[in-house]
Order: sequence, then C-alpha cells, then structure tokens
Amino acid sequence: MSHNSFGRLFRFTTWGESHGPAIGCVVDGAPPRIPLAEPDIQHWLDRRRPGQSRFTTQRREPDAVKILSGTFEGRTTGTPISLVIENEDQRSKDYGEIADRFRPGHADYTYWAKYGIRDYRGGGRSSARETASRVAAGAVARKILTHVLGVGVQIRGALVQVGRHRIERERWDWATTEANPFWCPDPQTVPVWEQAIDEARKRGSSLGAVIEVIAGGIPPGLGAPIYGKLDADLAGAMMSINAVKGVEIGAGFGAAELSGEENADEMRMREGKVAFLSNRAGGILGEISTGQEIVVRFAVKPTSSILNARKTVTVAGEEVELSTKGRHDPCVGIRAVPVGEAMLATVLADHLLRHRAQNG
Amino acid sequence: MSHNSFGRLFRFTTWGESHGPAIGCVVDGAPPRIPLAEPDIQHWLDRRRPGQSRFTTQRREPDAVKILSGTFEGRTTGTPISLVIENEDQRSKDYGEIADRFRPGHADYTYWAKYGIRDYRGGGRSSARETASRVAAGAVARKILTHVLGVGVQIRGALVQVGRHRIERERWDWATTEANPFWCPDPQTVPVWEQAIDEARKRGSSLGAVIEVIAGGIPPGLGAPIYGKLDADLAGAMMSINAVKGVEIGAGFGAAELSGEENADEMRMREGKVAFLSNRAGGILGEISTGQEIVVRFAVKPTSSILNARKTVTVAGEEVELSTKGRHDPCVGIRAVPVGEAMLATVLADHLLRHRAQNG
Amino acid sequence: MSHNSFGRLFRFTTWGESHGPAIGCVVDGAPPRIPLAEPDIQHWLDRRRPGQSRFTTQRREPDAVKILSGTFEGRTTGTPISLVIENEDQRSKDYGEIADRFRPGHADYTYWAKYGIRDYRGGGRSSARETASRVAAGAVARKILTHVLGVGVQIRGALVQVGRHRIERERWDWATTEANPFWCPDPQTVPVWEQAIDEARKRGSSLGAVIEVIAGGIPPGLGAPIYGKLDADLAGAMMSINAVKGVEIGAGFGAAELSGEENADEMRMREGKVAFLSNRAGGILGEISTGQEIVVRFAVKPTSSILNARKTVTVAGEEVELSTKGRHDPCVGIRAVPVGEAMLATVLADHLLRHRAQNG
Amino acid sequence: MSHNSFGRLFRFTTWGESHGPAIGCVVDGAPPRIPLAEPDIQHWLDRRRPGQSRFTTQRREPDAVKILSGTFEGRTTGTPISLVIENEDQRSKDYGEIADRFRPGHADYTYWAKYGIRDYRGGGRSSARETASRVAAGAVARKILTHVLGVGVQIRGALVQVGRHRIERERWDWATTEANPFWCPDPQTVPVWEQAIDEARKRGSSLGAVIEVIAGGIPPGLGAPIYGKLDADLAGAMMSINAVKGVEIGAGFGAAELSGEENADEMRMREGKVAFLSNRAGGILGEISTGQEIVVRFAVKPTSSILNARKTVTVAGEEVELSTKGRHDPCVGIRAVPVGEAMLATVLADHLLRHRAQNG
Repeated sequence: MSHNSFGRLFRFTTWGESHGPAIGCVVDGAPPRIPLAEPDIQHWLDRRRPGQSRFTTQRREPDAVKILSGTFEGRTTGTPISLVIENEDQRSKDYGEIADRFRPGHADYTYWAKYGIRDYRGGGRSSARETASRVAAGAVARKILTHVLGVGVQIRGALVQVGRHRIERERWDWATTEANPFWCPDPQTVPVWEQAIDEARKRGSSLGAVIEVIAGGIPPGLGAPIYGKLDADLAGAMMSINAVKGVEIGAGFGAAELSGEENADEMRMREGKVAFLSNRAGGILGEISTGQEIVVRFAVKPTSSILNARKTVTVAGEEVELSTKGRHDPCVGIRAVPVGEAMLATVLADHLLRHRAQNG
Repeated sequence: MSHNSFGRLFRFTTWGESHGPAIGCVVDGAPPRIPLAEPDIQHWLDRRRPGQSRFTTQRREPDAVKILSGTFEGRTTGTPISLVIENEDQRSKDYGEIADRFRPGHADYTYWAKYGIRDYRGGGRSSARETASRVAAGAVARKILTHVLGVGVQIRGALVQVGRHRIERERWDWATTEANPFWCPDPQTVPVWEQAIDEARKRGSSLGAVIEVIAGGIPPGLGAPIYGKLDADLAGAMMSINAVKGVEIGAGFGAAELSGEENADEMRMREGKVAFLSNRAGGILGEISTGQEIVVRFAVKPTSSILNARKTVTVAGEEVELSTKGRHDPCVGIRAVPVGEAMLATVLADHLLRHRAQNG
Repeated sequence: MSHNSFGRLFRFTTWGESHGPAIGCVVDGAPPRIPLAEPDIQHWLDRRRPGQSRFTTQRREPDAVKILSGTFEGRTTGTPISLVIENEDQRSKDYGEIADRFRPGHADYTYWAKYGIRDYRGGGRSSARETASRVAAGAVARKILTHVLGVGVQIRGALVQVGRHRIERERWDWATTEANPFWCPDPQTVPVWEQAIDEARKRGSSLGAVIEVIAGGIPPGLGAPIYGKLDADLAGAMMSINAVKGVEIGAGFGAAELSGEENADEMRMREGKVAFLSNRAGGILGEISTGQEIVVRFAVKPTSSILNARKTVTVAGEEVELSTKGRHDPCVGIRAVPVGEAMLATVLADHLLRHRAQNG
Repeated sequence: MSHNSFGRLFRFTTWGESHGPAIGCVVDGAPPRIPLAEPDIQHWLDRRRPGQSRFTTQRREPDAVKILSGTFEGRTTGTPISLVIENEDQRSKDYGEIADRFRPGHADYTYWAKYGIRDYRGGGRSSARETASRVAAGAVARKILTHVLGVGVQIRGALVQVGRHRIERERWDWATTEANPFWCPDPQTVPVWEQAIDEARKRGSSLGAVIEVIAGGIPPGLGAPIYGKLDADLAGAMMSINAVKGVEIGAGFGAAELSGEENADEMRMREGKVAFLSNRAGGILGEISTGQEIVVRFAVKPTSSILNARKTVTVAGEEVELSTKGRHDPCVGIRAVPVGEAMLATVLADHLLRHRAQNG
C-alpha cells in the first residue's frame, strides 16, 4: 500500500533502512522550470546531519544527496525527482544483541507483531535515519513555495522545551537559533539545556522536547474543508515524525483554557487588507490559512535507546533486561527541528498546488 | 479534489451544509454480509444530537438517518452505503446579519478568501453539523470492527477538561460518563463544570475543553510505516474535527517532560503473550498498535459564536463589531465526544482492512 | 475501498442500486462560483433516459435530479455537490426468478463469488442504471470545462456500428445524430439499424455496438506521464462503463496496420501555432493532449438479458436454463452514447484541474 | 502529483529518464516474508532487454537491477522495495538534432506545450526505457501472486499481429513463443514477420503490432464495482504503456458483432464448481474475475522514430523536415510483450490485496 508516500499533488515516497546500502525518496508533482541542483538540497540536509555537536549521535554520515532524475540543465522538468543518499557509517555489529530482543519504546515489538520479520539493524525502516529523506523532499518544497509565492516565504523552527525546561518566549530571537546546537531561540536557556542534556547522558538517560515550526509569507486560502484541512494535514505530518506524541496549532491545548473572547482573533483593516489583532488560531481558521504566520508545535518523547537497563522480552518469549549501547542522541528532539520544518514545507507546497487546481 | 473523503479502504465522503435540505455521507469499502440497519446508526447519532440538555445548542434536529443503498435484506453487500439526514430546524433568518461580516474565530473570512463565495447560513459547510455524518460513518466502522475482531472491541470517550477545570483521573468511572450531560467520568467534577458553563453562558462567553477517546480490544499490528502511521492518521482525524487545536497520543505533550526510563514502557510475558507494564505510548509504538488500549486526547477551543461583541470587518472592508446571537453551544467540546469516538472507530476500521490487505 | 469514486481532483463517488430507493453521486472538487442549477444537469440526463423509443428499455424513469448541497444562490461554492435521483419504476416482481440463478453474461455469478451476497433485483449495483449518476457528474464536468476553457469546448458522441453494420464515415453529419433514436451520424445507416435491431428483438436476441466520443476545443498540455496519462485515464473511464469490452484512441487497433509514416501525424505552422496535418493520434501524443480533437471509441457487447434460453446454474449448483424476460434494451450500446460523453467530460475536467495544479 | 505511481495497495512509483544516470522504481505494499532477490527480477528484465536480435534496437543496456531496500536476509519485510537500474549505453550525441525540433508521433511537442522544458535526450521521460521499471515491478507482483495463490498462477504473453500479418490462432503453441525473437506463438508466422520487419527497416519505415497477454490460475472474485473494475484497471494499465492505442478484453471489439447468445458465456457445473462453456468475456464479468483465463489484447502503433523524412516544426516555429537516425526498434510492439505481462501481473497483485482487504 502507499504507506510510504506523503502528500497528494506535491507527493514524495521514501524508501530505505538504517543499515541498507542507501535511503532516498521520489518527489513527484513539482512544477516545471524551477531551478534545482544538489546544493539546494544539501544545504538543508547538512542542518539535520548527526555528529555536529556532542549533543547528538556520533554516527558520522555525510548525507550527500544525488539527484538521479527529474531535472534537466539545472531546472525541474515536471517529472519525478529521484533523490538518493548512501549509507556509509553502518556498524551492524552494534546491533547483534537486539536481533532477538525488543527494545522498550521502540518499534521492535510492533514490527515483529505486524510483519513477522524485521530488519533489526539500527531499527531498520523505523530508524530516524528516514527523516533525511523528508528533509530532502522539504528542500524541494521550499523551492516550489519560493518560486510560486516569492521570496517572502520563510519556514523555520526552534526548540522551545527540553525536558522540563522551557524557553522564555519574551526573549525569542531567531538569530540565536543558528548560534547554538539546539536551535534554541532564547540565549539564556542555552546553558540550562546544555547542563540538562549532559546530565541525562551521564545518567544513561535521555530527555524529551517540544519543537515549534513557523511559516511566514503564506497567503490566505490554503487548505480545504473537510478532510483536506490544512491543520489536519499538518497534524498528520508532524505526528508521522519518529517519536512525536503530540501536535498543536496556535494556542493548541492552551486554547481549552481560554474564554471565547480571548480565543477568537479579532479583525481590522490594515492597508486595505484584513488584519488579525492576535494569532491564537496559529494562522488557520476553519481549516484554511488566514494569511498570518502558521504556527505548529509538536512534542518528542525522550530517546528510547538508553544505557539504563530496562525490562523486556525476546522473540522467543524469554524475560530479559536490555541496556542499549551504541551511538544515540540523548535528546532526539534536537534533530527533529529541521525535520519539522521540512514537513511544514511539504504540506504547504502540497496545499498550494491543491489550491490552485481548484481556484486557478 | 477528494477533500471531503476520509480513509483509504474504509472510506467515507461527506456532503451537505448546515442550512441545505440535508446532509449525509457515502461509506465505501465495508466488507459484505455485516448486519446493518438504521437503528444501528441512529443509536450513535442520538448521542451527538443537540438540544438534549441546557448545556448544548437548542437547535432541535431529530437527526433521523436513512440508508439509501449498500444493504440488502439487512446486511451490507460490499457496495457503497449512502446515508442521508434531513435538515429540519433551519432558521435562516438568524443568519442575515452575518451575510456580509466575518465572525471572529470562524471560517467566514477564510472561506471567502479562498472561494470568493460562501453559504453563510449557519456556517454552511463549516458548521459542526457536518459531524453528524462522521458519527454515522463511525457507526458503520464500529460494526465492522466488532464483526471482524469480536465483541471485545470497545470505543468510548470522555470529557476530561472544561476551561481550566480538569477531572481527577483517580476517580475515573466509565459508568459516570453516561449519567451526566458532559460525558464526565469523574462524579465530583460534574457540578464544577455545570457551574462553569452556566457562568460562561451568562457572561455571553464560552469555554474550551479536552476530550479523551480510548479503544480497547484492538490487536497489535494495526498501522504502518512511514506515512500510514496509525498515530499520524489519528492526529489528522481528530484535528479535522471542527474547533480542534491539539492532539496527543498516550503521554502526549507530557512525554517531553519524562525521562527515557519513565517513558519507554517495559515488557514482560503474561499468559504467553507480551504485556506492557505501563502505557505511556498510548497503545502505539513506532506507528503500529501494541495491543494495549489506544489513548487519544484532543483540545477543542471555546465556541467562537459568543454574545460578547467582537471587532471584525465586513466583506466590503468596513470595520464593525459583531455579537453572535442565535442558538449556540457554550462549550462545543461536549458534543465533540461522540465525534471523537466516531473518528477513532473509522481510523481503526480503515487500518484493520489495510492490515489484512498486506498481511492476510 | 474507494472503488466507487472516479477521478482525482474532479472526483465523483456514485452509490445506489437499480431497485433501491434512489441512486446518486457526490461530486467533489468543482471550482467555486460556476453557475449550476438542476436544469443544467437534467438536460443531459434526459438524453440518457430510457423509454424514449422502441429501441430502448420500456422502464419508465423520469430521472429527475435534485441538488442537495454544494451550491449557493445558483453557483458552486467549492464544496461537494450531492446529486440524488429517485428510483420510481421498480418492478421487483420481474426479478423473482433470478434470485437464485446466475444470468449468463451478467455480474450475477461474480458478485456472488466475491461477496457471498447480492442484491439480485435488476442487477442491483451492477445495473446500467448507475450510469445516470455518471451522466449527472458529466454535466457538472461540462460546466467546469466551459467555465475555464470557454464555449469552444464541445463534447459529443455518436454510434458508429451496430452489430456488423458500420456507418460510412464520409457521410458523417453531426446534426443527424440528434434526429434519430440511435445517435447515428449517417442518415443512410439509420434504416439499416432500425431493421437490424427490430429483427434482433423479434428473434429474442440482441446486438452489440461501437460508440465514438469526441472532444473539441481542448488545449494542448492536458495529461501527464507516466501513469497519469490522458489516454490511460480515458481507457479506464470507458472500460468502466457497463458492457464495454474494448477502447481505442485515434487510429486505435487500426494503428497496428499502418506504416510509421502513415501513423505519425506531421506538423506545420498555421497562424503562428503548431498544426497537425492528420489526427491518427486521436489528439493525444505521449499521454498529453495535442490540441486536436480527442477521439475515443469503445465497443459494447450485445445485451446479455435476452429471451432466448441459455444454459446456466443456480446458487445451489443446479444446472438450469434461463430465458430473461422483462424490459431490456435490445442494444445497450445506444444509451451508452451519453454515458461515454459524460465520462470523456469528467476525465477532461479532472485533467484540466490536474494540469493547472502543476503548471499554474 | 502522483502521476508516476501505479496501483493502490500494490503500488509502484517509477522515475528516471532515458539518458539520466539511472532509472528505477519504488514498489510499495508487498506482503512480508516473500522470498525475493535480484535474480528473481533480473530474469524478467532480461526478456525485455534490447539488442537481443536484429529486430530490436541495438542500444546495449545490461539492465542490471539492484535492490536497495525492503528485503532482509532474502525476504520482503513489508517496507518499500527500491529498485535501481543504471543507464550505461547513453549516446547523447545522437540526439543533438532533436533538441529543438519536434519528432512526429513522439511526445516532444506535447511535453514542450505542457512543461515549457523537456529533456530531449532519447525522449527523456517519455522513452520506452521507463518500461524496464514496469517489468521490475511486475517481477515482484509475480512473486506475490505465486506466494498467495500458489504455483498455478501463470502470466504470459504473445505477439499476435505485426502490421497486417496475424497469426493463425489454431496453430497457437506457447512453447513457440520462447523459440523466436517475436514471442510469436505460431511457427508458420515467424518467417512472415521476419521478412516484413526486415523490409520495413530497409524502407526506413516501421510496423505496428498487437499483443495478447493472458493470466491463468486467477480465482473468481478479483475486481470490484464500479470504478475499481478489474477490466477498467487493465485497460488503463495497458494504455499507459508507450505507443499503445487500443485495449480489449476477451472478445473485445469483436463483441460488437456477436449476437447476445453468442456473447454470453453459458455455465455448467464441473467437479462441483461453476464452469463456463466459452470465454468471450475474457475472464471478467461485471468487472470481477470469473476464474477463467483473463485475456487482454492491446495495439501498439508503429515506431515513430523512422529514417524516412517527415514534416515537422521547431521550437522556434520554423517548418522543417526530420529524419530520425539512431538505434530504434523497427517494431516496438515486440518488446511490449514482457511489458504487457508485467502490467497484467501488477494489476492482479493489486486486486488480490484489495480483495482480501474487503473480503478477508
């Protein structure tokens, strides 16, 4: 089944396992004549790449992308764009121990229950390595958005919570996100997180996180009733990222605590255009974009691969304890920031094409 | 575009506006030979029906469903099931004032921005009235789940928060949900909510809410990598319900604050089967059901139709104030409980069929 | 499964059985603000309606269509258009005999083999009555094509062969198609077919036919590689019509007998535009429209419901003979003309929206 | 848009151009635990490979397939199978002349009209080279069919007409198809075709063909009403193959000339099962398989790349003549035989999974 495809008109299909020869995706539906070359994609892949600080896994993957089809003389042709990333730093020997035991918090048991077979090496298909393909597809989506909507489109993300430590939103500074290994927008929170993550790693434990991704420069009108809702697609997109357990738009769960007056964003005219006086809605009303910033947050659970021993069972039904060694992110939420941005970009590119199909 | 269809193999397409002659849906993909008659569906529609307490809208709709196709001699035939519900209590005169002004918090502005035309009567297509079709489709989904998996399948929901008032989870009692107008599982919280909602209505305001829906009796193995994830589909399903702004599975946003040890549910053998010692995962690991209860929560914003005047603009760009009269739910979250249950049922029925397609 | 939906962006879902209370369809994806009222649809339904000459079934159905959703003040709103046609002239008693025996050439046996249950009354879901829904959806598609492309769009069809009797193409006169009960474009062939059909009916037999449908005014560029081909979608569309056993585009099977020079249409410039000197391709080259007339032909087998007794078996495995009485078309191909036109219109409307999604 | 994907549950997405670095496909939906290795696929690719006789193009491509994902220890895992075939014998210099002129009968003009850009080298995406990916996907489909239905499944094809020369069906001998370069089942026709093709090539011309593909061992029940019809999907599948202009099932266009009695296959009981006394239906009745052989024929137009000069125009609107040199098949229908078989296999695998989704 097309379980490995995402999107309708801008659609990508990913393939590949953590320890196979390569991973990749086929991006279908891109409009023609958009300039696209490998560096356009590599730029975003480099931001997701592991091993760039002591706070992420030490697996060393260059994540060099190759374009195998769909462009001609540096521009898209409208035909499918095949992107491939070779796997290089595979240490399959690391995974011998988990061949027959189910790691708690991982997909090991459920894949086995579903398929009766699993590529256990590095989690196989369920590895977060697959998210490199999403980032590659997201890079193409960004090009489409800019090509059609102009350079005002801006899609970016930040980490807003690590464990129990939240940023102070008043100190939000986008420039800061590029100046620390956490995509943290609040300079004063950076050392707090450094200490928290270091401590978690030393304890053999891990931390969860909350990511916020924001799109600016998106016109009103994207999205559609009733099951083609922009917010529903964003929710599915973010929840499909590994380890995500919650998604919210705008005020999100906090909206439940607002009064009707607080929640409903008022409108006034500004320079001849409808302007909202607040953005509780997160840029989406009645499933359709309002023209404000689109604001999505999602929660990532703490890394399940931890050194501390945990109770589990084997394929044969034996009760055992499992301590996960190997090279793991103490907080997988960090590297989820570029992935969340990419998913936001792909959903918007898809809805942009869907909108102009119906509305010209 | 198929924006009005939901699901892949168990798939329904809804149609209809709040003040048109009728609403309905076409349910496609149901297996053959399942007993199905109108009372099977009416039972669930009656639970969603407005006007059953002073805490919901006083619009009086019998919501009587008719089956127009897809069954023969009381059983499904495998062909599409067309369900129709006539609109009866339409007071279009209530809506004259909003013909040319955008209600804050509603889809008025965005529909107009997207389509350049809108059926403003009662919100037209964006009315929560559409959710009756979801409940009808959900009733068919329940029949399929029971038919294939047996009577152990149980899908039910509860309201767990109204405004700032949360239930005490230790007092959870399913029987209580049927004995109060809020689907509240905590007897001591009922009077608190009564008072809160009465006060909100008197103030001309409204309240948000959080709903929790739970499925029991679901075997391991439903769901699929990577974009056919059970949790991603549930997130999209719930976010597609009117006024929903956040969705979470299991520990949800709370997972961000857990340590790796706390979060990863341990496993032991119980009666020859894998058993989890906790359910932080909400019954879904690595996108696939674990066999535990599937636990989904979603946040509903406070009703946007409130008596208190709010700033807005007209279609012509005039700045005005708007006070929404008419018959409205002071807390739309209440009636979202059966809708959330229905969406949970449809996602599970769909994944059940998807699973057996691939895995026999 | 979505087996009852057709199209991707312009998409319709049909439902209903021959002897249920009604049939209908939900048309999704129509652009907004297109004038649409019931007479726009009724016009085309009236052309398909049975009982208009002695050469079609004497079942009397007014086939009056109602629009239940998706329009407001006479224009489309962009939301799903629900169309319903009530069944009136149902003589279920006619069908008692076939409750337990499989009619040769019909879907009786295969439905039973697949589903283990079937609505045998009038063929149930497999009745050609379903094609009324296609004609209704086709009427909406025509409105879209004209709205977007202008009044130059013209979709029409003709019967070009009945049994062994073919028209003489040199005598083709479109006006003639409206002046005889066969949509025959060749005046001299009309009496030949009259006699042939009368004789077949008297013999208790039936005749097959070939239909040709043509679209003019379609710009180059509709269609897409590799599986979104315009010709592949047209082939599927026509083959999905009841009793169709073959489809061809342009020169079709005849292309196999041409030389490369004869087949490849040459090009010249005419008034600054590319013009083809012939149309062997039937208006589609490399899966995409050329701007010429799109020409599709399809073959309809002779009506399987015939008076002459035929060998068959019962549900219980008894060998019997079956003579089909009741009111049947001696040549179902006649009424397939408006159905073929409708399917051509829906495929083109779908590809028009698909094209502008990707190409703006 | 997902224009480059085929199938619903068994679904493959192809990518790649004639003169890019590689072509390939992603096969999604395969059931788990099916033995699959590269030789299983290579076997079928070798049958399609060019340059094996003087009657096909002399382009030398080893067409060596690599499996990049979706298998583990020699068996499918249920995750997407990525297949890649490198392009080796690319002589881009051959194509300089056609960079700015539209080859008659080719997709050059329509791609340009649609996209405003085209990879002209070897036809780019519209090259028949893409069909290697179909054959690879078809090889996986064959494995699924055999795995689920048993070794009785047999999918094979033959060329039944070249130019005006048809085989004599009474002499049909399957063994002969493997013993000549045309997949001709009639030994006496082989020398006739040899001479015809040699003559066409010498004349600088080309020939069309008709292919017949047949599936045996398929149970009754595959397919579905109304738009999920087995025959409609087969028609779309075959029409999507390059150069195909017509498709028919069973008696096909010939059915138009039969009487109702001749056409409707009679039934009797044989060894406790329903048996048909003839197979005019081509194994499909009312859109669903009957359990008989499924018989599909399709017509391939003569190769458009011919030496004889033809009138055409350039991108700049200049009127020119074009003579296509390079290495081309004098009758592309020959190599379409394994492609047709592959498409038949993929449609059947898809419908097999679709059937068991709904019917268990």
